[in-house]
Amino acid sequence: MRTGIATVCLSGTLKEKMQACAIAGFGGIEIFEQDLVTSPLSPEDVRKMAADLGLGLDLYQPFRDFDSVSEDVLQENLRRADAKFRLMSRLGMDTILVCTNVGTATIDDDDLRVEQLSRLAELAGNHGVKVAYEALAWGKYVNDYEHAHRLVDAVDHPNLGTCLDSFHILSRDWDTAPIEAIKPEKIFFVQVADAPKLSMDVLSWSRHYRVFPGEGQFELAKFMGHVARAGYSGPVSLEVFNDVFRQSDVERTAVDAMRSLIWLEEQSAKWLDANPAGPMPGGAGGDSLPKAAGRRRYPMELATLPKVAEPAGFNFAEVKTDEPGQLERLLGQLGFEFDGRHRTKDVQLWSMGQARVIINEQAPSHSEPAIAALGFDVDSPVIASARAQQLRAPVVPRKVQADEEVFQGIAAPDSTEIFLCQGNPDGTAAWTAEFGQHREFGEGLEHPSGGARAVIDHVNLAQPWQHFDEAVLFYTSALALEPQPFAEVPSPSGLVRSQVMQTSDRAVRLVLNLAPLLQQGERKSYQEHIAFAVDDLVATARAAQERGLDFLRIPANYYEDLDARFALEPAFLATLKELNLLYDRDANGEFLHFYTATVGSVFFEMVERRGNYDGYGAPNAPVRHAVQYDSLHAHHMNR
Amino acid sequence: MRTGIATVCLSGTLKEKMQACAIAGFGGIEIFEQDLVTSPLSPEDVRKMAADLGLGLDLYQPFRDFDSVSEDVLQENLRRADAKFRLMSRLGMDTILVCTNVGTATIDDDDLRVEQLSRLAELAGNHGVKVAYEALAWGKYVNDYEHAHRLVDAVDHPNLGTCLDSFHILSRDWDTAPIEAIKPEKIFFVQVADAPKLSMDVLSWSRHYRVFPGEGQFELAKFMGHVARAGYSGPVSLEVFNDVFRQSDVERTAVDAMRSLIWLEEQSAKWLDANPAGPMPGGAGGDSLPKAAGRRRYPMELATLPKVAEPAGFNFAEVKTDEPGQLERLLGQLGFEFDGRHRTKDVQLWSMGQARVIINEQAPSHSEPAIAALGFDVDSPVIASARAQQLRAPVVPRKVQADEEVFQGIAAPDSTEIFLCQGNPDGTAAWTAEFGQHREFGEGLEHPSGGARAVIDHVNLAQPWQHFDEAVLFYTSALALEPQPFAEVPSPSGLVRSQVMQTSDRAVRLVLNLAPLLQQGERKSYQEHIAFAVDDLVATARAAQERGLDFLRIPANYYEDLDARFALEPAFLATLKELNLLYDRDANGEFLHFYTATVGSVFFEMVERRGNYDGYGAPNAPVRHAVQYDSLHAHHMNR
Repeated sequence: MRTGIATVCLSGTLKEKMQACAIAGFGGIEIFEQDLVTSPLSPEDVRKMAADLGLGLDLYQPFRDFDSVSEDVLQENLRRADAKFRLMSRLGMDTILVCTNVGTATIDDDDLRVEQLSRLAELAGNHGVKVAYEALAWGKYVNDYEHAHRLVDAVDHPNLGTCLDSFHILSRDWDTAPIEAIKPEKIFFVQVADAPKLSMDVLSWSRHYRVFPGEGQFELAKFMGHVARAGYSGPVSLEVFNDVFRQSDVERTAVDAMRSLIWLEEQSAKWLDANPAGPMPGGAGGDSLPKAAGRRRYPMELATLPKVAEPAGFNFAEVKTDEPGQLERLLGQLGFEFDGRHRTKDVQLWSMGQARVIINEQAPSHSEPAIAALGFDVDSPVIASARAQQLRAPVVPRKVQADEEVFQGIAAPDSTEIFLCQGNPDGTAAWTAEFGQHREFGEGLEHPSGGARAVIDHVNLAQPWQHFDEAVLFYTSALALEPQPFAEVPSPSGLVRSQVMQTSDRAVRLVLNLAPLLQQGERKSYQEHIAFAVDDLVATARAAQERGLDFLRIPANYYEDLDARFALEPAFLATLKELNLLYDRDANGEFLHFYTATVGSVFFEMVERRGNYDGYGAPNAPVRHAVQYDSLHAHHMNR
Repeated sequence: MRTGIATVCLSGTLKEKMQACAIAGFGGIEIFEQDLVTSPLSPEDVRKMAADLGLGLDLYQPFRDFDSVSEDVLQENLRRADAKFRLMSRLGMDTILVCTNVGTATIDDDDLRVEQLSRLAELAGNHGVKVAYEALAWGKYVNDYEHAHRLVDAVDHPNLGTCLDSFHILSRDWDTAPIEAIKPEKIFFVQVADAPKLSMDVLSWSRHYRVFPGEGQFELAKFMGHVARAGYSGPVSLEVFNDVFRQSDVERTAVDAMRSLIWLEEQSAKWLDANPAGPMPGGAGGDSLPKAAGRRRYPMELATLPKVAEPAGFNFAEVKTDEPGQLERLLGQLGFEFDGRHRTKDVQLWSMGQARVIINEQAPSHSEPAIAALGFDVDSPVIASARAQQLRAPVVPRKVQADEEVFQGIAAPDSTEIFLCQGNPDGTAAWTAEFGQHREFGEGLEHPSGGARAVIDHVNLAQPWQHFDEAVLFYTSALALEPQPFAEVPSPSGLVRSQVMQTSDRAVRLVLNLAPLLQQGERKSYQEHIAFAVDDLVATARAAQERGLDFLRIPANYYEDLDARFALEPAFLATLKELNLLYDRDANGEFLHFYTATVGSVFFEMVERRGNYDGYGAPNAPVRHAVQYDSLHAHHMNR
């Protein structure tokens, strides 16, 4: 598949954008007119630079408000088009996007539009230019791709074709199947963008909230499947207006963009496999497609990626610090066993059942504890790593001794290191043998009830706001996690956005949190945590209490409200209150949990899931945030 | 008017919120349930703290999803209500907000609702609690305040009344006139919020984008006029869910909130004066309102503010720096005259016609030039200052000598100092006599053509994102500037939001700019400017060119595009290109302008308005941003 991207997706100058697109490996670009107009580069400079970078100049865009106008305005528009066609010849470009009229259209008459578009096609032909006509979702008279294409068909000129843009089609919920009936030589260009499902006016939605494929909720694989089945084999180019991408690091955004197309290509191929061509609306069946001699069924080559299944579970979580004392104490109090130090590295292993926590002391001095790495159990670390690397995930360099297990590591957008591990079916991990048995920290600790079956239930990572969408695509594409609808949790510092990514069997649950903007710079407000599931939370909490654990203290008002909501059995309510346990219930089951105090930017949570409870105690999250804010604030006051 | 605010409007803990409300001078607060549930303060603590702070506890809220349910759910809801009524008695609160059912309603039957609300009213009566029933805009069966009030009327119980919320009413475009027909004793509470007109789903709009009165586009004065005319005299309380306010400094937001109510009070009184009561829909005329013995026509006391007219113009603009060399050179090259130094302060005055620029050298060392203050011509500085202070604007302390003019100064939300000056009708300013005539800098400079009539055309101030709405209200309420619809300008660093505030005669035009978030921390990307209008821009530019001015260089591509758009006369186009002039045209006239290079965070613009052109050359703003980005970037690269 020929990949492309519009310069308007990226930040920076035209030169910076072109360089970033070349580095990310795009086949070509669309030049957004404003990027050229504001550039000190001459058209000839741009042409040469593109050639040097190996970038095609695939589309000049946009040309607005052409058709459905009175004759005097049309004359003016043709003069304007002529100037742009001459400019394109200096750029060495042959395709221009003309979108349906939004601003100046006054005459709603398809015959007139056919006549006016014919004159444009004729002029374009004289300049060797191809006009790709696109229906904007908010076009005044033409806002439906089938309508636009009927006009193109009626004009029937070799220099006029259709541009299909997934945003304009899917935002209006137009059926995508009829795409297959369009003759491939009449599809001049294809633009793709994803978007979250928002109910707002389509213009604002389009101009601010588009995202790269895999970061939104559009059915893009299906759209692309129909495009491929139409026989189109030209560029598939991203046109994504997004307020965040427009200000983010240009090279990084270009890589994110490229990743989305690589992923979309694979998903499109999958969709085609799963959806064999059937009879078409309008009678054009899959079999009636034109078959040129020797031409393949789908001329668009859809590259695939190394396949990975969902991860089977968390292999470990790693916290980094050079001052491990408080962490060791917390883990011990929670009932973790100290499994010793690594034989060559300055690293400790703590475990409870199959929940493993590594304390990595190879941190710069005075680094407060922070979550540094997560290990995931996968079928084949090598295949998973190959897939991630083909998706442009940065590789984490890692030194190993000759006889140690080699971890395949990649860096997530928030710079957490993600290791792809070979898990054992029984939940154990071979690499733990590299750790010696020094029990000095764990002495006197017993397994808490239920601890033997403990696992990492979920991990909650704070994300920088400008990389949030990138992170969703990263975990979706590289780790096969499934994004769930996001929630917003009130905290005293503002709303926290919470995005769950999980496997279908819930063996892996990862929560991406977006702290309020004003807090993003402050290390302390950027708390992350690891949650462990046990069989008997009350017993675990009681044991931890006896070992002197510093629980997050839950206010009495919470238990009064809990009682008002759930009418709990008084002895049970008293136990919850005594042990600082939080509680939630839904139609599927119950959820008990508690939190520890925070060390550095890390805290721990212990949970017990009863029945088929599938959430995270969301109604309790505001309490957690408020108490953490309060203790942080008290801490500040005391300094 | 009794002022109030819901704790959910503010950031921080319940304690912090209450303290901030007391400092800002609110009469009372609404306690948002979650703020209590997450608080370590017991209900008794809250009660005592409110009493100590002199804050009324006016409303407990919200109680959700009560009515339109089956009998078993109703029983559960009554149990839940009973628990909350008991809690309210510990808080010493007597009014609770019950909103119409969104989540659990299953039966659409007004008779059933009347029965269920009667039982709630009866229970409330036993606890001495008043239930204020509010129609949510997205209520499942009841989402219209008139419908909700019909239910209240039918129940006819002293403990059940209506809560009117401007957001739920105006977001749905319900007519507000029928409010006047509601008996005053049946309006238990009034909540106000403003909002920008957004076309998005009303729930998201409500939960994220509400703003304080004067910061949005709702007709709140009219709403309040009808409420006052209904005879309501209870609290008028802000309930504003806003993502930014929720994370901003709590005391500052509380003051912004208070300002909005003070302003709304004045605007409501004005609306009542301008709209005498007429016949009412439903036949209830203004005259048919109940008149208790000795009761005033409008029992709600609407305090007024010292009146100010729009400012007549800019009196001066002040730039602060301890390294004035580059600024002096720029002003001289633009054709400004050096009018000398102040006789007691380390301050210079430069002028061109009636455009005055002060260079204030009393800056910390190595302060790069930044816009520090603006002077506005007002009828009476004392009255204007009194008004601003009643609107809680912070006063700027200023040292003056015995015989110098005293400036009344207030601080804008971005900390620019705003001085209220006594302007002369001929545009001169008396205080300029305090400056001596040292011409060493200005020697050899002549007035440029048209310079004698030069004025400050507009000033463009960069705003911190978290104080943007506050700034709009500040200039609206304190200076009587009128906000215009905002624009968004693309720049290589992201979209820049641009909000024009102006007087009706355009004598004052102030542009508030919101830089992309990632750039906000960077001083250099935070550019501000002062624009001067002259009669003959070409002559001004040519003179400046001869004096060696460092113009912002406009790329050649711009002039090609200009020609494609406007088909300009070739000699004129050549002049524009030669002098780095930008051009715009609309149905009303033409606009010519140029920019200087940036010094510190300041640059200058010279403009010429031809005909009745009323804009700012918005189509040229992306070019300006791109070139500034480029030179900034080149500068970084060279360091």
